[in-house]
Amino acid sequence: MNPLLKEIRHNPLLWLLAFVPMLFAAQRLKPEAHTLLFVLSVLAIIPLAALLSHATESVAAKTGDAIGGVLNGTLGNLTELVIALAALRAGEYTLVKASLAGAIVTNTLFMLGGSFLLGGLKYHVQDYNRGSARLQASLLFLATIAILIPSAVTEADSATGSAFTATLSVGLAVLLIGVYGLGLLFSLGTHRELFGSAGHGDAAEASEAPWPLSLAVGTLAGVTVLVALVSEVFVESVQHAAITFGMTSAFVGFIVVALVGGAAEMVSAFSAARKNRLDLSVSIALGSAAQIALFVAPVLVLLSYVIGPTPMDLEFWPGAVVMMLIAAMTASLVTNGGRSAWFVGVLVLMVYLIFAMTLYLLPPKLPGEGTVPQKATERSIQHAYDELT
Amino acid sequence: MNPLLKEIRHNPLLWLLAFVPMLFAAQRLKPEAHTLLFVLSVLAIIPLAALLSHATESVAAKTGDAIGGVLNGTLGNLTELVIALAALRAGEYTLVKASLAGAIVTNTLFMLGGSFLLGGLKYHVQDYNRGSARLQASLLFLATIAILIPSAVTEADSATGSAFTATLSVGLAVLLIGVYGLGLLFSLGTHRELFGSAGHGDAAEASEAPWPLSLAVGTLAGVTVLVALVSEVFVESVQHAAITFGMTSAFVGFIVVALVGGAAEMVSAFSAARKNRLDLSVSIALGSAAQIALFVAPVLVLLSYVIGPTPMDLEFWPGAVVMMLIAAMTASLVTNGGRSAWFVGVLVLMVYLIFAMTLYLLPPKLPGEGTVPQKATERSIQHAYDELT
Amino acid sequence: MNPLLKEIRHNPLLWLLAFVPMLFAAQRLKPEAHTLLFVLSVLAIIPLAALLSHATESVAAKTGDAIGGVLNGTLGNLTELVIALAALRAGEYTLVKASLAGAIVTNTLFMLGGSFLLGGLKYHVQDYNRGSARLQASLLFLATIAILIPSAVTEADSATGSAFTATLSVGLAVLLIGVYGLGLLFSLGTHRELFGSAGHGDAAEASEAPWPLSLAVGTLAGVTVLVALVSEVFVESVQHAAITFGMTSAFVGFIVVALVGGAAEMVSAFSAARKNRLDLSVSIALGSAAQIALFVAPVLVLLSYVIGPTPMDLEFWPGAVVMMLIAAMTASLVTNGGRSAWFVGVLVLMVYLIFAMTLYLLPPKLPGEGTVPQKATERSIQHAYDELT
Repeated sequence: MNPLLKEIRHNPLLWLLAFVPMLFAAQRLKPEAHTLLFVLSVLAIIPLAALLSHATESVAAKTGDAIGGVLNGTLGNLTELVIALAALRAGEYTLVKASLAGAIVTNTLFMLGGSFLLGGLKYHVQDYNRGSARLQASLLFLATIAILIPSAVTEADSATGSAFTATLSVGLAVLLIGVYGLGLLFSLGTHRELFGSAGHGDAAEASEAPWPLSLAVGTLAGVTVLVALVSEVFVESVQHAAITFGMTSAFVGFIVVALVGGAAEMVSAFSAARKNRLDLSVSIALGSAAQIALFVAPVLVLLSYVIGPTPMDLEFWPGAVVMMLIAAMTASLVTNGGRSAWFVGVLVLMVYLIFAMTLYLLPPKLPGEGTVPQKATERSIQHAYDELT
Repeated sequence: MNPLLKEIRHNPLLWLLAFVPMLFAAQRLKPEAHTLLFVLSVLAIIPLAALLSHATESVAAKTGDAIGGVLNGTLGNLTELVIALAALRAGEYTLVKASLAGAIVTNTLFMLGGSFLLGGLKYHVQDYNRGSARLQASLLFLATIAILIPSAVTEADSATGSAFTATLSVGLAVLLIGVYGLGLLFSLGTHRELFGSAGHGDAAEASEAPWPLSLAVGTLAGVTVLVALVSEVFVESVQHAAITFGMTSAFVGFIVVALVGGAAEMVSAFSAARKNRLDLSVSIALGSAAQIALFVAPVLVLLSYVIGPTPMDLEFWPGAVVMMLIAAMTASLVTNGGRSAWFVGVLVLMVYLIFAMTLYLLPPKLPGEGTVPQKATERSIQHAYDELT
Repeated sequence: MNPLLKEIRHNPLLWLLAFVPMLFAAQRLKPEAHTLLFVLSVLAIIPLAALLSHATESVAAKTGDAIGGVLNGTLGNLTELVIALAALRAGEYTLVKASLAGAIVTNTLFMLGGSFLLGGLKYHVQDYNRGSARLQASLLFLATIAILIPSAVTEADSATGSAFTATLSVGLAVLLIGVYGLGLLFSLGTHRELFGSAGHGDAAEASEAPWPLSLAVGTLAGVTVLVALVSEVFVESVQHAAITFGMTSAFVGFIVVALVGGAAEMVSAFSAARKNRLDLSVSIALGSAAQIALFVAPVLVLLSYVIGPTPMDLEFWPGAVVMMLIAAMTASLVTNGGRSAWFVGVLVLMVYLIFAMTLYLLPPKLPGEGTVPQKATERSIQHAYDELT
């Protein structure tokens, strides 16, 4: 266990691991202290996410490029997946959807904007490979479009029933996972040279000396179990904590969960930007967001038929649709030129801040509503009805 | 008639011409067998479209660059125009609009994505002239925006009356046809060198030895009459066939009619991609889509005042608006870099498949409704009303 | 006062200054002749805007690059600001918002499209610095997105109250002004070399021999007072004049006010395009539009708490949101390649003309409504209510 301990001593982020036992103790001793449990679970997830990401990379480095790349690509959002699974099992579908949408928006805007800003404060102008950035941004844009189509059509045509949305979501999930598989074949198989530098950089970035395989696999398994346990406490306490802090559920799902789940990747992306390796930052940010849309979201839809109380569809509330579209368009636009300076980062972060401010200020949920605003049309009919009776 | 027969023997697609007399026989003998008539009319239109496209190019090759270019540009979507005219005369305005929207989406996504995929399966990476592709994509984007403005404004502001939409549609039609004329002046007159290679390639692509003028004009005239007759059967039978096959009318108009009407151009675009002439494929796909928006749609609006039972406006249902916008944005995005590989084609086709799946799964029309969903606002009022009484 | 008189003799636009005293005379003699007062105030504002722009540049040229740049950047839309302030004081918030939205759309589409067309009629193909144009277009796009978020979210979720919109608008205004300040720091401080040529060209463009400082400051002060007085007449008469001319208020705010307020900048942009300095035209058009969104709009929101009868929010009617988004996307798209020809200008102007036609044809306001259409959802509830009672 030497390399693991060395890593922990070396990396201050991992000192937060002390909060993991504290959380389990608090859960046993004070099961009703929801706010405390919420804060402890947030603090406990962050170092676990960092360890998980490190272990995945070590396994990937040992198993050779092809399998390693698949592992790295597929387990890269493991934290988000495990948190979402905990919410899925609890039937908190609005939280699941908010965290999916939030992960796409946060990875695209906060991670990308933060990288541009932090890199730009150190370097006057940063150039990066715009060909590869454009491909990543196109992939993200098309993936975002894909998961938004059920929402867009049902918004546009309010008379479509939930049976339609459910069938469409399953068909879409199967299609997206297929495209994700083809994407792995493309980036790791037929056209790996286009992605080579970023993937290699990623591994080199994370650790100078990768862990031995047994340690890496053991850490991967153990930490996944811990993340799953912590996520369960997190999902249980988040609604109560939101009320205590005066935060709307939309804000919690979109911003807090997404920032917590993506903390490890953010550290990698920001640190790459500070080393003038903006290609890597862009690749982590956009690749991670595209993976949520193409892999995590459809897997959750299919798993909801197995482990969820009822099937989950891919219909997002209209505000989330607008935000995801804007995030994808912003990413396409700013990565188009292959050149960045600090003010570009400020602008991208501004869009993120405005989203966060809007979600923070949204009126809290009304009695009898879900955690995320209902569809506007349903509600306007409800209002018309209320006014008339 | 030797070159025509030689062409027919040479081109397996034209063997489908045998279905033309079969269709007319079936129409006389079994006028109630709507499904049979539908299938036969689809099979009959495809070779006629190919002949029409071939004849247009031969006439264009004989009449010199300027007039030939105008002919080629203006008659390129003759099949779509004739089918739409048959639907217009029958007063099937929702079918007309669905086929216009579908032609834009299908040409943009299916033709472009298919070209990228088929070309990419043969060549590792394909480069094409991104300057000209960008100009085409801008033109398509602005043309799409233009025909969507009446829909966007009336959606946003539901109290605008139909008189407003009708007047706006006529004004818009006149403006678009004017811009289309200026576009011909630009691409064939003042700036022909920017479009030269694509136009030249197009003619060379179609036939090594163009037909004599008399044969070409005769074929053009005769085949147009045949397409008109077949289209009439097609439009009459399509609604019945849709019910038999369990397809929604939206799916038929958007997908089936568009694929049938554009079959000839698809063959040209795909074959160019296999010859590593992606410039030509992009030019056919985006040019054809832009022409629907700038020429076919406004001509149909103006003709509806002459041959239709009532004037037709340019207001599309919201789902169609969303799909056209996404298609135009996707085209802009993927052609931006001037470089393609097979996975780009997969992504573009994925968006098309999702559209097709959504339209296929849309609930079939309710009694008393048009063939395409009504405006969402009208319907939600209707629902509010129904719930209250 | 010699240089001022010389300028007036030299520049035919300034001969319109004769309408300023005529307006004040007419206001005293015929206070009820609203249509006359409207026409005179339009004719009087145009030369005042030109003088204001000239004086600002002269002051900027004297005070050195840094302060001069801030002045030039911040006072560049002084005319729009003063007109909007007059409308703000009168509580005409719908006119204020329509003129803000209209200024963004008009500067982006009419000024850019006109520059492309006028330049393209003289030069076959015009190349310009696409790096700087892309940065400007990104800035405009993100700024437009920013001021649209409150509208997008409240549209998507109709149950949010006006308290939410008001708080969000204030937070947004503070954030935008902060970003505007950072933008000045970026373009005049840390990265001035990226903007150098355009800024320098701007000053050189306006006058060969800048005015003495005292004359420039005096003109600035005096003309601002005159613009404020004329704007008050304009705002008072515009509603009456609209009815007389059969124009909707939306058309007046969006098109007439925006064209009048931006007349001086248009002259500069068009004249630069005719001199093959398209970089400067693009910079004036997009920079001016971005400034409206990042500076003028938030300043007006904050000032509404001081001088307005009630606080103003940043919620635009849905049609205006669509138009602003389309304008920003069009600007991004056409400036992407860094190359222009006359037909690109025609296409951009076509989009503007379609907007103008749509607004002109919109049904005039109904009794009891504001000057700009209400939110669609409110209205559909109202209709449902009316039908039921």
